[in-house]
Amino acid sequence: MKSSYSWEQLKKDDKGLVPVVVQEASTGMVLMVAYMNKEAYELTMESGVMTYWSRSRQELWIKGETSGHYQHVHAIFADCDYDTLLAVVDQDGAACHTGHHSCFFREDAEWSAESTYVQALKKAAEEQA
Amino acid sequence: MKSSYSWEQLKKDDKGLVPVVVQEASTGMVLMVAYMNKEAYELTMESGVMTYWSRSRQELWIKGETSGHYQHVHAIFADCDYDTLLAVVDQDGAACHTGHHSCFFREDAEWSAESTYVQALKKAAEEQA
Repeated sequence: MKSSYSWEQLKKDDKGLVPVVVQEASTGMVLMVAYMNKEAYELTMESGVMTYWSRSRQELWIKGETSGHYQHVHAIFADCDYDTLLAVVDQDGAACHTGHHSCFFREDAEWSAESTYVQALKKAAEEQA
Repeated sequence: MKSSYSWEQLKKDDKGLVPVVVQEASTGMVLMVAYMNKEAYELTMESGVMTYWSRSRQELWIKGETSGHYQHVHAIFADCDYDTLLAVVDQDGAACHTGHHSCFFREDAEWSAESTYVQALKKAAEEQA
């Protein structure tokens, strides 16, 4: 894949990592947040399959390698100050290791309004509970 | 607002912060990522207005206090391992200090497919370029 900026342009944290927000292309659902180092970023750009640096296991993590739940990249955006990435993906199966489609399945706060989007999130949270 | 978990349950980074993905309720657009400390989290839950810890300024940051571009909370989710939050909000004006609606306005990678959602993101990126 082509890129409009280089890894070198991105601001890394003190461990050389950049956080990546992962959003499902078809639904707009935010699936998870994970972290990339240089190798993970380059492998993602070469393969089109989301690849991270696992902070807990301290190793390269091709998402879906063991579960089959791969994430296929549509597009990746850098944010205004180049310290965070947004990846828009097709998700095979569930994104979360718990089996939930999204890692964000725990509701906090009262629902103060009922937009279509929040309704969909709430429904998904209820179905997955 | 009520909460189904406490700040104490969340896993913080070595600076006592938790990253927050901010998503617009009406569009599903991911607007930005920012960070909360305990005080920011508690003020957000009390006021319903997104409040962060500014890592660059090292101070409490009521989003919109100077710009008027407040973020009103619909709901906040914790992720599976309690180290990241997802806030669904109504955004007054633009979320980004550059004037873009979302901080993620830089396109990377070729568009490999054209889902409705990616089309909308692409259109937004083009309109804002």
